[in-house]
Amino acid sequence: MSGSYSETLAMKTVGLTGTIYLPENVSKTKELALVREGAVLRHHGTDVEETETKARQMALEEGIDFISPYNDMDVMTGQGTIGKEILEDLPDVDAVFVPVGGGGLIAGIAAYIKALKTTAKVVGCQPAHSAVMAKSVEAGRILDLPSLDTLSDGTAGGVEEGSITFPICQQCVDDWVLVEEDVISDAIYFMMAEHHKIVEGAAGVAIGAFLKTAQKYHGKSVAIISCGANISMEKIKKIIELRQQ
Amino acid sequence: MSGSYSETLAMKTVGLTGTIYLPENVSKTKELALVREGAVLRHHGTDVEETETKARQMALEEGIDFISPYNDMDVMTGQGTIGKEILEDLPDVDAVFVPVGGGGLIAGIAAYIKALKTTAKVVGCQPAHSAVMAKSVEAGRILDLPSLDTLSDGTAGGVEEGSITFPICQQCVDDWVLVEEDVISDAIYFMMAEHHKIVEGAAGVAIGAFLKTAQKYHGKSVAIISCGANISMEKIKKIIELRQQ
Repeated sequence: MSGSYSETLAMKTVGLTGTIYLPENVSKTKELALVREGAVLRHHGTDVEETETKARQMALEEGIDFISPYNDMDVMTGQGTIGKEILEDLPDVDAVFVPVGGGGLIAGIAAYIKALKTTAKVVGCQPAHSAVMAKSVEAGRILDLPSLDTLSDGTAGGVEEGSITFPICQQCVDDWVLVEEDVISDAIYFMMAEHHKIVEGAAGVAIGAFLKTAQKYHGKSVAIISCGANISMEKIKKIIELRQQ
Repeated sequence: MSGSYSETLAMKTVGLTGTIYLPENVSKTKELALVREGAVLRHHGTDVEETETKARQMALEEGIDFISPYNDMDVMTGQGTIGKEILEDLPDVDAVFVPVGGGGLIAGIAAYIKALKTTAKVVGCQPAHSAVMAKSVEAGRILDLPSLDTLSDGTAGGVEEGSITFPICQQCVDDWVLVEEDVISDAIYFMMAEHHKIVEGAAGVAIGAFLKTAQKYHGKSVAIISCGANISMEKIKKIIELRQQ
């Protein structure tokens, strides 16, 4: 589930305990990183929307707080500080590419950037295999759509009905780019071969979305959110093999 | 040849042209990185010592300057600024692990650290398959030894007779660690899986040397020089496969 790693670190930092709910098909690499930081894990469902519903219901039953990875004003506001950092570093940035799952990250960043009335475009990036937010914005309402398997497990899955991120995405995101699996894979390869960095699929979505539309941004200043590196070495190996074929 | 990338960048920065001599078995990844920075390349021999002899001879014939990647006071002094940066960041550092080929990098760093009379130990790290400097220091004279194939192409090969790095290595390096190929491979894997970074074999030698002797440094402050990332994706794939066996 997107945000689970930062939420685990946040709990550790303030000395709280809590349970992280994850879909059953979560990557082992992400799970190991969570366990190492002291997270207690439970698994439910294969789409994060099912996982979230279960977590919300368990929290209600147990009388404890539920924190959504995106449908939460504080989480969104915290993620929005990335927008502040981008504008501090690049006051004249022309476009910001952001990976989108539930929309917390982009809603926070876009709300901040638009509130400052800059001319920067905010570009929402989703895997074509799981583009629930992009298609929901197009339809004008949150759609209940299935997701196919994607390298971008961090952004995969549905959007909770009534999510506060939806109207913000409608108002503040200027453009959407859907990215095919081979483009995500190429973006991850590009980051290894050219920048010597390992990034996860969700980061590959934003980088791939830029690479796919780069000709539109010639001479422009562009920021791309590379949001994580929890990817298995097995997937890295397959990405290299794919390029060598 | 170690240093060829920084020398290419240095030439570009000051607007000079020059020819980079490389052994015939240099990695394609390194070569591509050099060409992209505008380097003119020539190939000679399979051990860097042969390559250096050829380059020195050509420079003499053509009446131009020869710059050794290590046997040069200015190159060594420039590399020594890393020692200054380490002591600025970590004034109480207990040990510094440095990859060693011709010895320019470690001689510069060690000379600086010892000149300041700190208690920091400088640890020379070489692949067991090509440990000419370590064995030369042990023997008390520069030995002419063959090298076996190693993942650490950046440190492989012989040391030029009369190299100024040799007496400095004798005086200023406290300890030597030789690293087997599987340890270099494990170190590169560790950096990918745990730190999401791609490093080259020479960096893997220093990181592997630390991992191999880590129990000696429990509770100590240690700096490890991760000196580059020019490694082919083919090698990265093989390193992952090796771990999965």
